[in-house]
Amino acid sequence: MTHPFLFHPQVAPWFKESADSLQLTLFSELDAPIREVWLRHEPDNEEYLLAMTPVSTRDRLQVWQATLPLLKGQDIHLYCFKCLTDEEQWWLHGAGVSSAMPPREQHFRFNSLHQPPAWVQDQVFYQIFPDRFCNGDPALSVKHHEYEYRGKAVISKGWGEPVSRHEEGLGACEFYGGDLAGIDAKLHYLQSLGVTALYLNPIFDSPSNHKYDTQDYFKVDAHLGSNAQFAELTRNLHQRGMKIILDAVVNHTSTQHPWFCPPQGAQSNPDSPWRNFYTFDNEGDYVSWKGIRSLPKLDFSSEQVQDAIYRADDAILRYWMRAPYQIDGWRFDVIHMLGERGTAEGNRGHVRAIRGAVKQENPDAYVLGEHFFEASQWLQGDQEDGAMNYYGFAHPIRAFLAGQDIAYHPIKISAEELDSWLKLARAHIPFKNQLAQFNLLDSHDTARFLHLLGEDKQRMQLAATLLLTYIGVPSIYYGDEVGLSGGKDPDCRRCFPWETTAWDHVLHDHYRRLIQIRKQRPALRRGDIQTLYAGPHSYVFARTLQSDQVVVACNRHPTEPRTISLPLWQTASPASRFTDAFNGNKYEVVQGQVQVTIPANSARVLLSS
Amino acid sequence: MTHPFLFHPQVAPWFKESADSLQLTLFSELDAPIREVWLRHEPDNEEYLLAMTPVSTRDRLQVWQATLPLLKGQDIHLYCFKCLTDEEQWWLHGAGVSSAMPPREQHFRFNSLHQPPAWVQDQVFYQIFPDRFCNGDPALSVKHHEYEYRGKAVISKGWGEPVSRHEEGLGACEFYGGDLAGIDAKLHYLQSLGVTALYLNPIFDSPSNHKYDTQDYFKVDAHLGSNAQFAELTRNLHQRGMKIILDAVVNHTSTQHPWFCPPQGAQSNPDSPWRNFYTFDNEGDYVSWKGIRSLPKLDFSSEQVQDAIYRADDAILRYWMRAPYQIDGWRFDVIHMLGERGTAEGNRGHVRAIRGAVKQENPDAYVLGEHFFEASQWLQGDQEDGAMNYYGFAHPIRAFLAGQDIAYHPIKISAEELDSWLKLARAHIPFKNQLAQFNLLDSHDTARFLHLLGEDKQRMQLAATLLLTYIGVPSIYYGDEVGLSGGKDPDCRRCFPWETTAWDHVLHDHYRRLIQIRKQRPALRRGDIQTLYAGPHSYVFARTLQSDQVVVACNRHPTEPRTISLPLWQTASPASRFTDAFNGNKYEVVQGQVQVTIPANSARVLLSS
Repeated sequence: MTHPFLFHPQVAPWFKESADSLQLTLFSELDAPIREVWLRHEPDNEEYLLAMTPVSTRDRLQVWQATLPLLKGQDIHLYCFKCLTDEEQWWLHGAGVSSAMPPREQHFRFNSLHQPPAWVQDQVFYQIFPDRFCNGDPALSVKHHEYEYRGKAVISKGWGEPVSRHEEGLGACEFYGGDLAGIDAKLHYLQSLGVTALYLNPIFDSPSNHKYDTQDYFKVDAHLGSNAQFAELTRNLHQRGMKIILDAVVNHTSTQHPWFCPPQGAQSNPDSPWRNFYTFDNEGDYVSWKGIRSLPKLDFSSEQVQDAIYRADDAILRYWMRAPYQIDGWRFDVIHMLGERGTAEGNRGHVRAIRGAVKQENPDAYVLGEHFFEASQWLQGDQEDGAMNYYGFAHPIRAFLAGQDIAYHPIKISAEELDSWLKLARAHIPFKNQLAQFNLLDSHDTARFLHLLGEDKQRMQLAATLLLTYIGVPSIYYGDEVGLSGGKDPDCRRCFPWETTAWDHVLHDHYRRLIQIRKQRPALRRGDIQTLYAGPHSYVFARTLQSDQVVVACNRHPTEPRTISLPLWQTASPASRFTDAFNGNKYEVVQGQVQVTIPANSARVLLSS
Repeated sequence: MTHPFLFHPQVAPWFKESADSLQLTLFSELDAPIREVWLRHEPDNEEYLLAMTPVSTRDRLQVWQATLPLLKGQDIHLYCFKCLTDEEQWWLHGAGVSSAMPPREQHFRFNSLHQPPAWVQDQVFYQIFPDRFCNGDPALSVKHHEYEYRGKAVISKGWGEPVSRHEEGLGACEFYGGDLAGIDAKLHYLQSLGVTALYLNPIFDSPSNHKYDTQDYFKVDAHLGSNAQFAELTRNLHQRGMKIILDAVVNHTSTQHPWFCPPQGAQSNPDSPWRNFYTFDNEGDYVSWKGIRSLPKLDFSSEQVQDAIYRADDAILRYWMRAPYQIDGWRFDVIHMLGERGTAEGNRGHVRAIRGAVKQENPDAYVLGEHFFEASQWLQGDQEDGAMNYYGFAHPIRAFLAGQDIAYHPIKISAEELDSWLKLARAHIPFKNQLAQFNLLDSHDTARFLHLLGEDKQRMQLAATLLLTYIGVPSIYYGDEVGLSGGKDPDCRRCFPWETTAWDHVLHDHYRRLIQIRKQRPALRRGDIQTLYAGPHSYVFARTLQSDQVVVACNRHPTEPRTISLPLWQTASPASRFTDAFNGNKYEVVQGQVQVTIPANSARVLLSS
């Protein structure tokens, strides 16, 4: 299927929002025999076709416009474009161009009522697993054999000692002493790297090193610090203009949480005041997360659970959003699983209610969901602002560059398939939420990306380039920037190597430079995204916002460079010249095209100048 | 992207339902280097991968099986298959095969709690526009200038006289005298054609000929007959083993309905007991359907409206489902638009409640929705049993054979694109609902299909073949079977030509034979569907149920026949020989393949023998 070039920009000045309408623009190829364009929408579930007006031409483009009325009180507005020639039709939708009407889920979508906070898209996040980032106060550190965790004596290890192997089953009970004081002490490091926001894995009272089994939601774990120290950390961060979000682990608690454990807890006491916080079967057995007995699942059909977690004035989620902590948002662990009576039933209603409570405390808070897979249904505006973007970023990039999927199974995709995957994932969510997606390469739950690449640091640079330039807000997993590697959990949670001799300085400089570029270039933070080329091994996209433009060209081929002529004329405001962000080379745009040679296993970043 | 052959049969014996699990089967090509297959599902929104067992081989197929547990109380279960080779992966989902995980809406889906009634799939429906089918009692007929309709004197016309042109604006106020007695008188005709079920356009008291503006929902229009006559008609139908569904026009009423008109009605009386049945703005102006002033829209936020339409014991929908009428289901006009305060808000809840009321009267009733476009969200089990399948059948077939879309715009698709469109539409809804989709070529709302084909009767035979063999329940618009033609509304509502000299007997025989085949062949009514070939102009599919198999091969090319070797080995139970349903030619399956030559502009139907 060959089709004429069509594009719908979703940023100013080609996309204008007002309270009751959107002014929408479509670019079509001037040479294509398109005689009519219709804007299709379904305000009351019924189709309406609005004629678009050919308002101007520009270079090789015909510019069409129409005004889409926004039905008052309606949140999500779907639309797509129908272009007619004398004998055929072409539809432009979120996932591309088709010869017939696209299914509803691929229509463009605009959310008028619930949008993510604007600050999110300007951040560079940094994810910290607290026990492994920096030990700032050794007096707090867990002592060897200090207590037992699930029948095993806890282990204290020296900074940088190898973590245990997965098979040993010690992953959760060995400690290295990282703490809040350590994070505080390294804020200068993070700021010099360019990081502007932190996401901390859980920090509340818990016997494990990962702290996904909470004992007390109102208390910072004593081995990480105190509530007062956390207040100081957030104050210091905010004074530096930085943001922080915490991990909300409210699907389940620890078996040691007073709600659950003896003497008053639900577990062995049918008359416990918290018995209905959990789900018990007729034999008195409880439902736990994925059958893991140490993680009893909370039952959100209980109004008391709702009150405790988010609804009441003294709810957990509200507590940390208020002074003296004032965190800037929450990352919700397994948010799609929250639900009633041991299942995910009623999930949508509860997530909406949680969002409501969080936004009531601070309308500008970031509501981030953890999803290993497609999260489209949570990303329509009324639930989450963004998701940990495994599905729409980490997985496709991992497939493309590392040939593995999240289950470590082999996967082989071309750059063309990569492009389709990325587009389809984007198509399912509103543009504003695309900008607020939390992009990542890896995390505490996956092998390090560098490990997946077989320690190929040049390819890791390529991956970092995509992370820092793709649409959405990037998050760097601590240590990735200096070349920290590691296999599956718990190996992916090694200590940050503070001896700089252990760093890969080339990679570190690359990250720093990319962050710098991202900060300088509004197109990378708020701009549109447009594919300029996708072949077997090479993928090129443009980010454009008004006169600012960045072109990112990557080539995964291990040995062969690739020379491509890029159709800049297809973009909203093509620059006339570009400079390579890394080597300073100059590029001239000639007749709407710019020719770029991408070295093997590399990416080029071209900045409009 | 070339990929190995993969198929998931959704009928017995390869698909076994029990109360708490499904036994699922996957066929893969024996030659393909697939070493593992995983069944993916998300019972609590979290991914689980179940290993499939290679249970047997058959001809060129490897057969894999696994048991999918069904979470109690959950209605929709999504799943898909992940096949691994040593270096890549292939996913089989409802819309086909992909190199990476498909988006959620393309996963296979099974609805365990709400399924369509089993009788539906065995029917051949016939749609009747009552004023134009047969005049059985001329004494009832509207008399010339008997009354005024919207300021125009009504017109009485002789049977078969041309209908007015659209531009004249007389479409709704000219009458030909068709009535219930006429339908009753023609039941022998319909039964000899093979029809088993009727869908009647509205028959309740209304001043227009189309009767989409109801004055009294409890009274058959006097010009069509009486309630007693309708009771007799349904009795006669049921005695013949036939079924009947009526048109439920409950989005709006006539302005002449007592709820709306003077003296007590809502229109000019703010104190009317029915004022809240409709939506008025501050100026006292009312919301009407698509702004058509004669069709004031009902407000389903009113509990009184809910009571009147479906909820109360004496509700309209219940009334006609009880003795002496006992209709077998309802076709709901613009069902996606029903909603609150002049909008479609709350639609899902109201449609679910309507379904609940209808099924309370008769769990075996057919709930059919009218949708000109994608209806996937209404077809997940809990709302409709089936939709008028414009989106997933009429539109693609019209595009493929007539080169026009529903807006009469040009559209050009290959058979390959046709196949993708059909598959994608199917993928969005559970298999049981696919079997209950109401397939049609045309209706009272569209130009006749024959007209769209430029009166090409051979191509009309091809279209009829697809209608009667595709998955879903076919509906024939009255007269299509004898070659009745006509352009857009009102021309598509011409009188049925009862003088048989006016018939196209070849076409009529073709319809009769197709219906006969459908009745003889369970594979056509309840069988699986599988594409065997799709190229530029030719499309071939197999319907398979246990040992029964039908192959439908069509070629739209106007002049060139097409010879294709069909991979029968890919089907669940390939027959060893076939007979052409029309000319009796025999076909042998050799090494899993059967070679077929499809004449130009024709279809072949091969029956296993």
